[in-house]
Amino acid sequence: MSALPAPGCDDLAASLAAVVGAEHVLADPELRASYEVDCVGVRRGDALLVVRPADTAEVAAVVVACREVGVALVPQGGNTGLTGGGVPRGGEVLLSLRRLDRIEPVDVDAGQVTVGAGATLAAVQAAALASDMELAVDLGARDQATIGGMVGTNAGGTRVLRHGSMRAQVVGLEAVLADGGVVERLSGLLKDNVGYDLPGLLCGSEGTLAVVTRVRLRLVPRLSHRVTALVGVGNTSDALAVLRRLRPLASLDAAEIMWDDALALVQERVGLRSPLAGRHAVYLLVECTAMHDPTDELAQVLGACSAVEDVAVGQDAAGRAAIWALRHGHAESVVIGGNTVKLDVTLPLGRLAAFESRLRAVCARREPDAVPLLFGHVGDGNLHVNVLGVPPERTGELTDEVLTLFAAHGGSISAEHGIGVAKRAYVRLGRSAADVEAMRAIKHGLDPRGMLNPGVIFAENHSSKLR
Amino acid sequence: MSALPAPGCDDLAASLAAVVGAEHVLADPELRASYEVDCVGVRRGDALLVVRPADTAEVAAVVVACREVGVALVPQGGNTGLTGGGVPRGGEVLLSLRRLDRIEPVDVDAGQVTVGAGATLAAVQAAALASDMELAVDLGARDQATIGGMVGTNAGGTRVLRHGSMRAQVVGLEAVLADGGVVERLSGLLKDNVGYDLPGLLCGSEGTLAVVTRVRLRLVPRLSHRVTALVGVGNTSDALAVLRRLRPLASLDAAEIMWDDALALVQERVGLRSPLAGRHAVYLLVECTAMHDPTDELAQVLGACSAVEDVAVGQDAAGRAAIWALRHGHAESVVIGGNTVKLDVTLPLGRLAAFESRLRAVCARREPDAVPLLFGHVGDGNLHVNVLGVPPERTGELTDEVLTLFAAHGGSISAEHGIGVAKRAYVRLGRSAADVEAMRAIKHGLDPRGMLNPGVIFAENHSSKLR
Repeated sequence: MSALPAPGCDDLAASLAAVVGAEHVLADPELRASYEVDCVGVRRGDALLVVRPADTAEVAAVVVACREVGVALVPQGGNTGLTGGGVPRGGEVLLSLRRLDRIEPVDVDAGQVTVGAGATLAAVQAAALASDMELAVDLGARDQATIGGMVGTNAGGTRVLRHGSMRAQVVGLEAVLADGGVVERLSGLLKDNVGYDLPGLLCGSEGTLAVVTRVRLRLVPRLSHRVTALVGVGNTSDALAVLRRLRPLASLDAAEIMWDDALALVQERVGLRSPLAGRHAVYLLVECTAMHDPTDELAQVLGACSAVEDVAVGQDAAGRAAIWALRHGHAESVVIGGNTVKLDVTLPLGRLAAFESRLRAVCARREPDAVPLLFGHVGDGNLHVNVLGVPPERTGELTDEVLTLFAAHGGSISAEHGIGVAKRAYVRLGRSAADVEAMRAIKHGLDPRGMLNPGVIFAENHSSKLR
Repeated sequence: MSALPAPGCDDLAASLAAVVGAEHVLADPELRASYEVDCVGVRRGDALLVVRPADTAEVAAVVVACREVGVALVPQGGNTGLTGGGVPRGGEVLLSLRRLDRIEPVDVDAGQVTVGAGATLAAVQAAALASDMELAVDLGARDQATIGGMVGTNAGGTRVLRHGSMRAQVVGLEAVLADGGVVERLSGLLKDNVGYDLPGLLCGSEGTLAVVTRVRLRLVPRLSHRVTALVGVGNTSDALAVLRRLRPLASLDAAEIMWDDALALVQERVGLRSPLAGRHAVYLLVECTAMHDPTDELAQVLGACSAVEDVAVGQDAAGRAAIWALRHGHAESVVIGGNTVKLDVTLPLGRLAAFESRLRAVCARREPDAVPLLFGHVGDGNLHVNVLGVPPERTGELTDEVLTLFAAHGGSISAEHGIGVAKRAYVRLGRSAADVEAMRAIKHGLDPRGMLNPGVIFAENHSSKLR
């Protein structure tokens, strides 16, 4: 775990330069620096070298070269991860996939596109739109986050309710294995039951089983009409009752939840007005998209819900943006808030109301001066739990208690950010011993020497040196 | 590969009887018989014993007992598979999951249900309907096919276009590993990124990695309005052009393709009238379902397609059934046809027209007296290729040539029936050497002794005795 080049580093640099060109092997600490720390400045580690291959063949050659000298690799995409899975732990070669950013022509018949792992979400979204289609995943980091990284973490975002998370968009992929072999499943066939679903397995494996180099993505039709509503209700259970009534709407695209205490804080800090006249205990943000105007069908369902206290509808771009700004303001307020316990979790909807009150009780008891700020993608049970103003020395204890509380409510400790290194100590909260052993057996089968992203997901005995 | 009990069989029968009760350990050849042959009478093999556990704990105990004496297991559900993956190769213990047929109460909030692996598709469909929801997979064998078997083969059917295949319905599952350990992922959480996606990996693994015991399924809202159309077009390319225009319809639920030569044969053999006045070279069966009546939006799209020659619409149950009968009659005609090359394949839609003409040319050259009968789920590129009247001694050669032709057109040799033992010799047509090695590494990692369904997917060195 040292910043000094390991013995043999010069030889490795030379062999990597022969593969990718000397300008794409970075040994200089200043040039390496931006690759060695995550986007929020929390996790960092020294890379032995940073290497930037241009295509799949170069990635495979890099894997072989590192394997020959017994050095592990940390794959990195846009470096927007929040659990430390894409920055070095110390001593590994940092493998940046960003140059693999080619976007092939959209296959209009199939409604699919093949893209390099280094293509950003925004670039792929733009390419899809140019063919009057959409990539059905959206999230805030779209300008930096790469498709490869989003596959690695099985990224989520605001549209999972309707379209599923990243795994549901992946029709196939190409990846380099730990021995340098290449798996290519880019045919785009929706039904291809020849052996195991390696693409699905690699989604969410956080770079520990193979290096994803290209991805075949399904696209969805671009729907011309969109409406957004902000719905005020009296409590969390009523919000869930409204959600239940909304689910049969084929046009339902997003359902986000906010609470009044957090919304008031967001409005004050970010300076936003609510389109609703009064205050409500809980708010739902609902968005519908369709080929026809879905406003009437949405209004009809909401009008029939006795739990609905008030509704504001945004039909034009400005009206919709004003509603979304309230939701996006939550993430901004978390950053302004400083010291934060920041968790991304998911739980059964039937337990949400009970969990919420328990969580608030825990915070009030442990940290009476702290401010819990909850919001989330309620359509899929995904809650972002932030507690602002917790002294750094006590964030660990609070995290432990909240994650344990989550597990006790049947929740998962990671919804859309993955395990990385940040949550590896908590894996057993969500998985049985037999389950972890099965995952280890797969890891060992595909990467027996511990070549790929050591220390991610599995905690013990990781090293930048191969077995 | 003998019908005689192996040494130690009595001991094993006794230890299994202690687990499941003596009446659920079948050694008598007459009682074993129905488990030892597939539903079309093609594949068969002698089981050492048939064992019928009642729950997950009993399955785990059966696995441990067999492991102790070094005998492999063949898991079996409804025994409706068509590739021999669920019947013994010879000498294994046949593990019937049918008694695990419990259907838990539907979770209406989550839109999910947990069912035993032995529950039939029809029983789960009925349970979902009772809660005004649907399981979004449907196929002809619904009364016998079990959910566990459908997970094992990643079953498809007529609604994949809209809802995906079985894997897309599986929110989670419970399975017994080769060492008797139990993986339980039944929380129903839609976002649960804690390590690898074992449920997705087990879908389509055909019982070679673990024994699925319970499945958590997503349900979809039951849509009240349904319309079916039969669309006549002039050629295969025109059919694809119509399909392209239909895709943006959110209500599109099925798109099946039929050709006139096959349809005429079906009408003659099964005695059915077409609701269209004239003949057309190619037909699309299109079905839309929605909360509103989708007839107008379907008619609008079809009306704007210059490729459409004629349309017949079925709005009531009888009208819809008359159209579907033409499609289902194809499968029936195949059975009447006797000696048949029967393939289930999928290919990129852009290659469909070229493939079709090449295929017809191959059949005309090799088997001028045979009748090619094509039909399929065109929405997902899945074609059922049947060639009737091929002499038994030449079916192998024709199969080889057609599957190779498929692979050359970028197709897959298995769409929804799996590999089993029937297609294991063709796996390399669809997968690279590195890919197969990766699959083997996973198999070896999870089942190092070759305990589970030996001889399925991977051909070589399989045995009913453990390593």
